Amino acid sequence: MLQRRTWLGLALGLTLGPWPGESAHAAAVPDALTTLIPPPYQAQALTPEETPHFTRRKPYREGDHLVWEYRLVVTETKHPLADGTPYKVYAYGNRVPAPQLYARDGDRVRIRLVNETTVPHTIHSHGLYTPQRMDGATHVHLGPDGEMHQHDPAGAPLPVAPGEEFTYDYIARPSGSHFYHCHVSANEHMARGMIGTFVVFPKLPEPPADFDSVLLLQEWNSKYAKQGKPGDPREVGDADFFTFNGLSFPNTPLMQVKQGARVRIRFVNAGAQPHFMHLHGHTFLVTHKDGFPLREPMLMDTVAVGPAERVDIFFIANNPGDWPLHCHSPPHTTNAGVYPGGMMAHLIVGPDRYPKSGEGPLGPGIEAATDAWRDYARRYYASLAKAAR
Amino acid sequence: MLQRRTWLGLALGLTLGPWPGESAHAAAVPDALTTLIPPPYQAQALTPEETPHFTRRKPYREGDHLVWEYRLVVTETKHPLADGTPYKVYAYGNRVPAPQLYARDGDRVRIRLVNETTVPHTIHSHGLYTPQRMDGATHVHLGPDGEMHQHDPAGAPLPVAPGEEFTYDYIARPSGSHFYHCHVSANEHMARGMIGTFVVFPKLPEPPADFDSVLLLQEWNSKYAKQGKPGDPREVGDADFFTFNGLSFPNTPLMQVKQGARVRIRFVNAGAQPHFMHLHGHTFLVTHKDGFPLREPMLMDTVAVGPAERVDIFFIANNPGDWPLHCHSPPHTTNAGVYPGGMMAHLIVGPDRYPKSGEGPLGPGIEAATDAWRDYARRYYASLAKAAR
Amino acid sequence: MLQRRTWLGLALGLTLGPWPGESAHAAAVPDALTTLIPPPYQAQALTPEETPHFTRRKPYREGDHLVWEYRLVVTETKHPLADGTPYKVYAYGNRVPAPQLYARDGDRVRIRLVNETTVPHTIHSHGLYTPQRMDGATHVHLGPDGEMHQHDPAGAPLPVAPGEEFTYDYIARPSGSHFYHCHVSANEHMARGMIGTFVVFPKLPEPPADFDSVLLLQEWNSKYAKQGKPGDPREVGDADFFTFNGLSFPNTPLMQVKQGARVRIRFVNAGAQPHFMHLHGHTFLVTHKDGFPLREPMLMDTVAVGPAERVDIFFIANNPGDWPLHCHSPPHTTNAGVYPGGMMAHLIVGPDRYPKSGEGPLGPGIEAATDAWRDYARRYYASLAKAAR
Repeated sequence: MLQRRTWLGLALGLTLGPWPGESAHAAAVPDALTTLIPPPYQAQALTPEETPHFTRRKPYREGDHLVWEYRLVVTETKHPLADGTPYKVYAYGNRVPAPQLYARDGDRVRIRLVNETTVPHTIHSHGLYTPQRMDGATHVHLGPDGEMHQHDPAGAPLPVAPGEEFTYDYIARPSGSHFYHCHVSANEHMARGMIGTFVVFPKLPEPPADFDSVLLLQEWNSKYAKQGKPGDPREVGDADFFTFNGLSFPNTPLMQVKQGARVRIRFVNAGAQPHFMHLHGHTFLVTHKDGFPLREPMLMDTVAVGPAERVDIFFIANNPGDWPLHCHSPPHTTNAGVYPGGMMAHLIVGPDRYPKSGEGPLGPGIEAATDAWRDYARRYYASLAKAAR
Repeated sequence: MLQRRTWLGLALGLTLGPWPGESAHAAAVPDALTTLIPPPYQAQALTPEETPHFTRRKPYREGDHLVWEYRLVVTETKHPLADGTPYKVYAYGNRVPAPQLYARDGDRVRIRLVNETTVPHTIHSHGLYTPQRMDGATHVHLGPDGEMHQHDPAGAPLPVAPGEEFTYDYIARPSGSHFYHCHVSANEHMARGMIGTFVVFPKLPEPPADFDSVLLLQEWNSKYAKQGKPGDPREVGDADFFTFNGLSFPNTPLMQVKQGARVRIRFVNAGAQPHFMHLHGHTFLVTHKDGFPLREPMLMDTVAVGPAERVDIFFIANNPGDWPLHCHSPPHTTNAGVYPGGMMAHLIVGPDRYPKSGEGPLGPGIEAATDAWRDYARRYYASLAKAAR
Repeated sequence: MLQRRTWLGLALGLTLGPWPGESAHAAAVPDALTTLIPPPYQAQALTPEETPHFTRRKPYREGDHLVWEYRLVVTETKHPLADGTPYKVYAYGNRVPAPQLYARDGDRVRIRLVNETTVPHTIHSHGLYTPQRMDGATHVHLGPDGEMHQHDPAGAPLPVAPGEEFTYDYIARPSGSHFYHCHVSANEHMARGMIGTFVVFPKLPEPPADFDSVLLLQEWNSKYAKQGKPGDPREVGDADFFTFNGLSFPNTPLMQVKQGARVRIRFVNAGAQPHFMHLHGHTFLVTHKDGFPLREPMLMDTVAVGPAERVDIFFIANNPGDWPLHCHSPPHTTNAGVYPGGMMAHLIVGPDRYPKSGEGPLGPGIEAATDAWRDYARRYYASLAKAAR
């Protein structure tokens, strides 16, 4: 299959690099890519990456589609919680969180899952319109013997057994901030770290951002670090560690932007509890829910993000200084009760961390940017309606 | 009172069947009923039903109003949780969940509550504009002796004592997906199963659906199955069984619709925790909150439904195959920690459960249906404004 | 500094009273004040108050700004839970909840914090665009020694040490229902009561309300009443007492309004869990989120208010009688499991608590008021856009 794809690529006149991996001087990426992929993501999305457990190929053309190709090896490893506790995880690409994936709306995506663990796994691409056999749900049902069985082995999608592999192959749509996770024993495998984010860029250019990033929200219960069964319903609310992209404060990254920068953050909640995201000194414009633009973007300073929800926000970094960005359920800003910790990061606006003067925000605020996003939503839905005709 | 109603009915020239119960060849239902009640509900709402503990009479005319009449006997019985644990419940109509009630916006509804249990009960019709004495709240207040007392027995509505009965009689409004529950020791009686849904159809025809159903969300704590005091605040998040209409996966119904079917689901959360409803392979259009149409219906794939909230969603079943519909707080898809279970059901789209080919969704998606719902909301609010003048 | 302000005031021709405190015959308040501050708040906001632990000065002009000046002494005291348990709190102004603060959008506010406790504290003004050094966040970071340290003492804002004081001085913006809390050991200090609400009135007059009040939502865990460490993540969902403005039912105030009254309630959640506010017999119009008006106000009967969220609702009290207003997570309407209790209050509409007749709501409902609020939002955002140019 790899051969055929390469051949197709050659037949189309594209120079494709070797796979897996891609040399730095490989195929010129079609111009449309660099115009449609926002600059904050270009380097990361378009540069091939090869590790023993993760491969990201440079996007290439195949027939009518551009193809984004990934290879994820699932391993059993340990992820340190904030207090150093080694938490036993299943790790797509040997990383927690899993590697971030990218595609454009309408492009083809191929994700080869290689299972090097001792239990079966799948990839479920949450929010994407995959065909049913690429959905990654395990479809376990109650058998006549009163036991749960894998349903209809002749036709149903099967999980990828230990030592085996499978390629998820589908058209990436709709656009938006999505995520993928294992759907085998989902309560346990998600709590054990099998989560990655998946950004599908839209066909229409969005209002530009100078800084654009994904914050993946996860909860951890240190009781289950070594063994046991995380994801028990009686433990909802019982987690003691809380992470942004796998890290708790003070290990979360220190972000720095210029004053006046247009900032976009895509909150993705992969936990079992809602979180309430807040940034000091600024106002969020909520622009997307689950990847869909809001026809009426909403202003707020605290945004609820429930399990599996994705909420994209946008703001103008117009208030100089160092500002905490955190979940506002106060216990979630601790590491096992020790404050500060957990779901907290810092955003520095401008050159000075602690400006000695100033009256707060300078220049126009987020209110003025609302019209651009409302106009984008209008054009987005008009294009959908046109496509549906 | 029954005699008077029947007599009034006869005086209006309507042929009314006997009550309780109604023979199959009874009164012709006014034409307006069958045009305003959506087809998915017609058979259930318009057909009389009589059991020892529940009576649904065929709607009949009385003066200016159509009357919907129900009789609910509350019993003490047991409801099996997914692992077979017999959970001691109080059951309106001897069923968990309670029977679904129907009316049209502006019709009269009469619900006779007959209490055959050992403790007092009421019916509170959540979301409906009942007169105060039909509200079912118990109005217990602190007395000068420092104890809680039933307030002002001379005027306050009283709960229905064991062995007694009371008829709740009011005009059903506003339209929407509502529910009813007991308001005596509400924390315990709701946790003990005293919940039913109540659909009030609007006066304006809504965009049609081929499949339209209610999913009632409830949580159960097996520690309190036999006795004790369910509904303690320290147990919020401590429930271990989670149900759709009283059932947990794999006992939840398997739904099947034709490809392209217009599907409406009314989520009603009668628990103590929020839930986050998600369907694989499709996008929801959120059309109503607590029965009120959204002026700007919103697209999303995961929808938060908090305690007492009702959220109606609509989608086009355009992606063939078998798709899980579930709460996305992963522990809520288990039965006491065993995955899969809990709040999960399956929706089969098209003839084949596991299509062997296909590229995902076929034909127009939900995006194209948004305009019809926005237009409906516009007409709905215009009619309200006209009525208020 | 006080002298300078007084001098400036005199130079502007304003007669300023002594400070702290203000005599009843003090400065004539500028007319604009009484026209822009809604009548339900005028008496409380404009009348000076002086206690040993709290001072509210009459607003006075200084340069281009009107100044609102407060002095809050933080004490260690005890707040009784509903069962009488004395809960050890840190109390701004020696009160739980803390005194309500007021200002108008664009006015200057000065809050002098005097720390008479044994641990450091700050004031963080949630939702307000303070300059960074007035933000009250403690900026504790991980040092090279692996311990948490107060960051960069040369430049970073410091908490107010025991026995010391500090004046927070900033321009109050944006308008809306905000709150303030301590940001030192925020998980513990917020759970120990350091919360107050802060209403910033907008420059444009809003649709009028006959009754307008703030309901502050808090959770308490009686396990930590005497000592220990409240705010541990494992206790989220483990609270057993729930308060409106510091009180649980049946100690919550009985509100009474005339039939037809226009009622506004500003829900402010300062806890760790979401709450789901519901009023019997009426429909809420959600008008603001975090102080920002909704361009499309939404109708609902149950509104989710997450931690740190502020949701303003509006309704027409057109249904006579006594109506419970409560959180609809049933355990939250108990005091440690005893129903009724917790987050519940009663609203009496009209002269009769239990009207003996009536068919429910009389006169136009909230639907008719929606247009006024939508129009207000339109004017509000137009004024913001104009200011940004």
